[in-house]
Amino acid sequence: MMGRFRLDDEVFAGTVKGDRVIVEQGLYCDTYTLDELETLPPVTPGKIVCVGLNYIDHARELDMELPGCPIIFLKPPSAVIGHRDMIVYPPESRHVDYEAELAVVIGKQCKNVPATHAGDVILGYTCFNDVTARDIQQEDGQWTRAKSFDTFAPVGPFVVMAENVDISNAYIRSRVNGRLRQDSSVDNMIFDIPALIEFISHIMTLEKGDVIATGTPAGVGQLNHGDTVEIDIEGVGTLENEVVKA
Amino acid sequence: MMGRFRLDDEVFAGTVKGDRVIVEQGLYCDTYTLDELETLPPVTPGKIVCVGLNYIDHARELDMELPGCPIIFLKPPSAVIGHRDMIVYPPESRHVDYEAELAVVIGKQCKNVPATHAGDVILGYTCFNDVTARDIQQEDGQWTRAKSFDTFAPVGPFVVMAENVDISNAYIRSRVNGRLRQDSSVDNMIFDIPALIEFISHIMTLEKGDVIATGTPAGVGQLNHGDTVEIDIEGVGTLENEVVKA
Repeated sequence: MMGRFRLDDEVFAGTVKGDRVIVEQGLYCDTYTLDELETLPPVTPGKIVCVGLNYIDHARELDMELPGCPIIFLKPPSAVIGHRDMIVYPPESRHVDYEAELAVVIGKQCKNVPATHAGDVILGYTCFNDVTARDIQQEDGQWTRAKSFDTFAPVGPFVVMAENVDISNAYIRSRVNGRLRQDSSVDNMIFDIPALIEFISHIMTLEKGDVIATGTPAGVGQLNHGDTVEIDIEGVGTLENEVVKA
Repeated sequence: MMGRFRLDDEVFAGTVKGDRVIVEQGLYCDTYTLDELETLPPVTPGKIVCVGLNYIDHARELDMELPGCPIIFLKPPSAVIGHRDMIVYPPESRHVDYEAELAVVIGKQCKNVPATHAGDVILGYTCFNDVTARDIQQEDGQWTRAKSFDTFAPVGPFVVMAENVDISNAYIRSRVNGRLRQDSSVDNMIFDIPALIEFISHIMTLEKGDVIATGTPAGVGQLNHGDTVEIDIEGVGTLENEVVKA
């Protein structure tokens, strides 16, 4: 797994093995424990492309029609936070939801990628929480504002390289204060990852480090001040964030 | 006015005066004519925040209700092109529209800017064309895909510094093949620029170089292969792009 870290004023990438972080420095390696370092978001995406309603059960729980093609929206890079950073409840919302999602991290610039070659452009996978102010989403009709507040894109803790994991039927779960809230499998997606990469890369050029958030399963629900929310994906990791009201 | 330019493999910023471009190189200046240089997009925004339905007459022509607060959406940086670059018609659309917009360029990182201090965070202004696949916009309901195709964010040609222009009642016009199609004034906005900056910076941290596209007036219409579309804003400049079908 790859992560990004800070120690004092220095920011660097490192390879995570268990609780150790190995940082290459020219010909030498430094080794730290995770406790010694601040864990940063593992990616600094130029864009975050999200897919709405990509699990049948979630579309039903929102009483929305199943889409004929993926419905996409963008979250701004300014919303990104890392593992154990705080999700801040905006004062204008009374209903902020978690949404557990598998994020695909793009490995190289690409356009018009056929589904059969999608694997060539995937660097790896990480956990993503598509935090959403549900009341604002309903008020606006358009989803962007509700999903773009600072801290509304928790990502991490690390990126697992594509070659090191079989994601095809990994479980995807969320827990709030330790209690299971979402429990599904990546193979319940309506549009699978190769189909999403074909669809999105047909619209826009993807760049190295861009993130595709692949939609959330049923069981979304509200967060409150003091809650701890975890996104747990098999073979990928567990992303944990606390919620605070500003 | 400030622009970005390319000569051979070198990319640099320069000050535009008439048809001359002055490029500072340490203690010295180089001077070019505009003809000698390739004009690039004048900004490389980390995010492009767009405002929908911000002119009463445009909301009416689309038969949409007037919003109680600004409706925002994001365009990806991958959609940006510059003056005289080609707008490429995607094969899946049969109805691509121009939308003339005034773009505000942010001058520094900021959050929670009150309207009364909005001037402090504005670097300047440029022309923007919020190119939109109207058929896809109607099909999806969500606006992102329809507005995110590569080449769908023409911007430029240059940025006029805020202190050098009074934008408050500048005309905003578009022409297709020389024929006037939109003709309004910046003072017809429903939410003015200070109100937009307050609203958006309350949601998300804005960064230097970010762009806010402030909405389009009535008169939007379709582009076809071979058309030339111009966005002309008083005191800001004229952005010209040709349309090609892929």
